[in-house]
Amino acid sequence: MKKDTILLDHGSGGKMSHLLITDLVLPIFDNPILSPLHDGAVLDIDGKRLAFSTDTFVVDPIFFPGGSIGDLASIASEKAGVKVVTGDTKVVPKGAVDKIFVNTSGIGKIPVGVDISSRNARPGDKIILSGTIGDHGVAVLTQREGMTFDAPVKSDTAPLSRMVERMVSVCSDIHVLRDPTRGGVGTALNEIAGKSGIGIKIYEEKIPLKDAVAGICELLGFDPIYIANEGKLIAFVDPRYAEKVLAAIKEDEFGKDACIIGEVMSDHPGRVIMETRIGGIRIVDMLTGEQLPRIC
Amino acid sequence: MKKDTILLDHGSGGKMSHLLITDLVLPIFDNPILSPLHDGAVLDIDGKRLAFSTDTFVVDPIFFPGGSIGDLASIASEKAGVKVVTGDTKVVPKGAVDKIFVNTSGIGKIPVGVDISSRNARPGDKIILSGTIGDHGVAVLTQREGMTFDAPVKSDTAPLSRMVERMVSVCSDIHVLRDPTRGGVGTALNEIAGKSGIGIKIYEEKIPLKDAVAGICELLGFDPIYIANEGKLIAFVDPRYAEKVLAAIKEDEFGKDACIIGEVMSDHPGRVIMETRIGGIRIVDMLTGEQLPRIC
Repeated sequence: MKKDTILLDHGSGGKMSHLLITDLVLPIFDNPILSPLHDGAVLDIDGKRLAFSTDTFVVDPIFFPGGSIGDLASIASEKAGVKVVTGDTKVVPKGAVDKIFVNTSGIGKIPVGVDISSRNARPGDKIILSGTIGDHGVAVLTQREGMTFDAPVKSDTAPLSRMVERMVSVCSDIHVLRDPTRGGVGTALNEIAGKSGIGIKIYEEKIPLKDAVAGICELLGFDPIYIANEGKLIAFVDPRYAEKVLAAIKEDEFGKDACIIGEVMSDHPGRVIMETRIGGIRIVDMLTGEQLPRIC
Repeated sequence: MKKDTILLDHGSGGKMSHLLITDLVLPIFDNPILSPLHDGAVLDIDGKRLAFSTDTFVVDPIFFPGGSIGDLASIASEKAGVKVVTGDTKVVPKGAVDKIFVNTSGIGKIPVGVDISSRNARPGDKIILSGTIGDHGVAVLTQREGMTFDAPVKSDTAPLSRMVERMVSVCSDIHVLRDPTRGGVGTALNEIAGKSGIGIKIYEEKIPLKDAVAGICELLGFDPIYIANEGKLIAFVDPRYAEKVLAAIKEDEFGKDACIIGEVMSDHPGRVIMETRIGGIRIVDMLTGEQLPRIC
């Protein structure tokens, strides 16, 4: 295996993806705006703050239970309250691309007083998860592999812009917001622990998980904590506002199953620790290797 | 041939590409910001105007004489004076993509007083072309097909941001700016004629064309007016400022061969007419069919 070969693992969202970015891409651009490695850039345009983000979608199959590549890419812009303002299409010969890939870029104004970043988690923060985990990855996998179940798992694909508006309206001081997509909740929490230099403790019994997803994961040997989600978010909030923000999320149509799954500790910086259902302690590392390729 | 099948022709930048956008994509989004069908969107952010544009690159081969897919995609951002502020990578299995595709999106502030649009061409405007045509398409084609020539044609890939800055600094009232990429100069001029509702007259003998490009086009039966360019622009300028803008372009390292190739007429709206070298008149229609696939 040559060192200069791109492997599927480089697309996992886990350790290899991070090495690709930090070792290969970042040194080339050497740009302080890139260094926070947040989901999007924050730009100052004549004193106004603008967020700018981009994402590419290569999911296979392009139609899956509960959604399609177009839903993931927010082509369902009407539902999200987002306007499509410009675009490009390219066509390549048969065989040069697997059906269709979609790339989206978005810009938005950042409200005054809002400062959300993966670097802003603080000891004591409560960690809120907006719903059940693993639905998307399991839906895509079972569809791709042609597995059929009595109660098929549907993807959780959903626009979260209105949920975030609700959250910010009750608490402008949300510390961290992340979508646990590639690499799942486990990888997202590790990134935040690393960037904020804090420790994270979560409770297995508090993490919402559908029985069907749990069952399929057990059957196939997957750990749901690393399975991709599409319509979920993780929020880190000062304990004084946690219940208020949780209530705001639960009011949203996509946040009914939201709950507090853990908190930030000042010890064990960079580590994510899970108290298991039987009371044990397990270290949740960043995803290593490719669990489920092409889920978004 | 099914009506709902995407053909290479849909990626030509010519008639079929336009039908794909106007008949399939635009009705879905139904958004006035999209309706000018300019290269980018113009957004109002609290009274400041922002331009937002996106482009995908699928060129084959990814390395060609004079450049690479990375140059096209402005990964050569340093040369262009552009900062890369955010990004995303995805990995798919071998065979699911032909090596690498690159997507870029850019935002920029529009200076006060500048109003450039393909709808703004006016009778009397002089049409400036910043250099020789067809270099990029011919470079990619000859590389892809393994043709060798004594004097290989190099792509004209180049960043044009500084050239445009020079132009705007001597004349803020430039009416139209276009990059004649897919579909070449012929298709770009037809788009402008249609959107501005004016006629265009160009002079074959004034269009800069390298002997090597002319020779290869003749050999292979291509019309250079439809061959893609990468480091060229077309500007429509009020005749009073045309010489000044032309001089500004010629001062730029990528504009040495610039010249005035024609003018806007009030008759023949929507048409592009070329006076040929031997004094005849030829109608230059939009490109129909795919001349050279995957040149960007």
